[in-house]
Amino acid sequence: MKRTSMEGQICSVARSLDVIGDWWSLLIVRDALAGLRRFGEFQRNLGAAKNILTTRLRTLVAEGILETAPASDGSAYLEYRLTDKGRALAPVLIALSQWSSAHIFQQDEMCVVPTDKKNMQPLKPLGMESSDGRPLSLDDVHFSLGPDDVA
Amino acid sequence: MKRTSMEGQICSVARSLDVIGDWWSLLIVRDALAGLRRFGEFQRNLGAAKNILTTRLRTLVAEGILETAPASDGSAYLEYRLTDKGRALAPVLIALSQWSSAHIFQQDEMCVVPTDKKNMQPLKPLGMESSDGRPLSLDDVHFSLGPDDVA
Repeated sequence: MKRTSMEGQICSVARSLDVIGDWWSLLIVRDALAGLRRFGEFQRNLGAAKNILTTRLRTLVAEGILETAPASDGSAYLEYRLTDKGRALAPVLIALSQWSSAHIFQQDEMCVVPTDKKNMQPLKPLGMESSDGRPLSLDDVHFSLGPDDVA
Repeated sequence: MKRTSMEGQICSVARSLDVIGDWWSLLIVRDALAGLRRFGEFQRNLGAAKNILTTRLRTLVAEGILETAPASDGSAYLEYRLTDKGRALAPVLIALSQWSSAHIFQQDEMCVVPTDKKNMQPLKPLGMESSDGRPLSLDDVHFSLGPDDVA
């Protein structure tokens, strides 16, 4: 399927998908959030071909989601670290994980989810709140489609 | 790029990407959340080729994210409506939108974001909380990589 670039799009969802709307990219960010740092670690965990992983890592660095740094142990390896922009993707991954746990996995299947380090329990479902802190349900939220739809 | 199926994967992020980790699929869900119902409406708004849109809608129905229903106005058109499973994807789209607004759009660019219908203000950033309601920062969250990593 052809992937038209969404760079000119005004919709924030479309624009973010243009940057990270790629299967491997989000899984690399997941692995980086879990603490992986090196090419070989990503490769082993993702089972990705080297050329695919190289391209994806390069894109994530170019987009400012990962940055490279000398290895923390003083060895010759490069490390890939999440930038603040990259760490800010955590809620996207948590939302995906919570949706998947609730709607895709069968009850008897094991399911790996982001957990609170303190009690090792899964997080609460991400809650929607208004700018002044009122809890919102989906019916309270307006999803715009484009500039003509802005109230 | 080859898209290996993640169906056998234990990671909830990988499994959810298998189902909705496709650019057009998430944009169709976005449009459905915004109130679009008909093939022609999705096509006009997404600018997608008919064959791509047909395939994506069929997949979303097969996955139980959309369901078809007779048109509410009594006409011969089919309508596509989000199921509960589909509506539950809203936090994923909101998280993407908030990330994009904070990190991709330039300050002088217009940016369409999910808003609170009552005050038409953007929502608060989705907050992470423990199962017992403590606010969590990213450093408080453990991201597992697979069964061996489960505490």
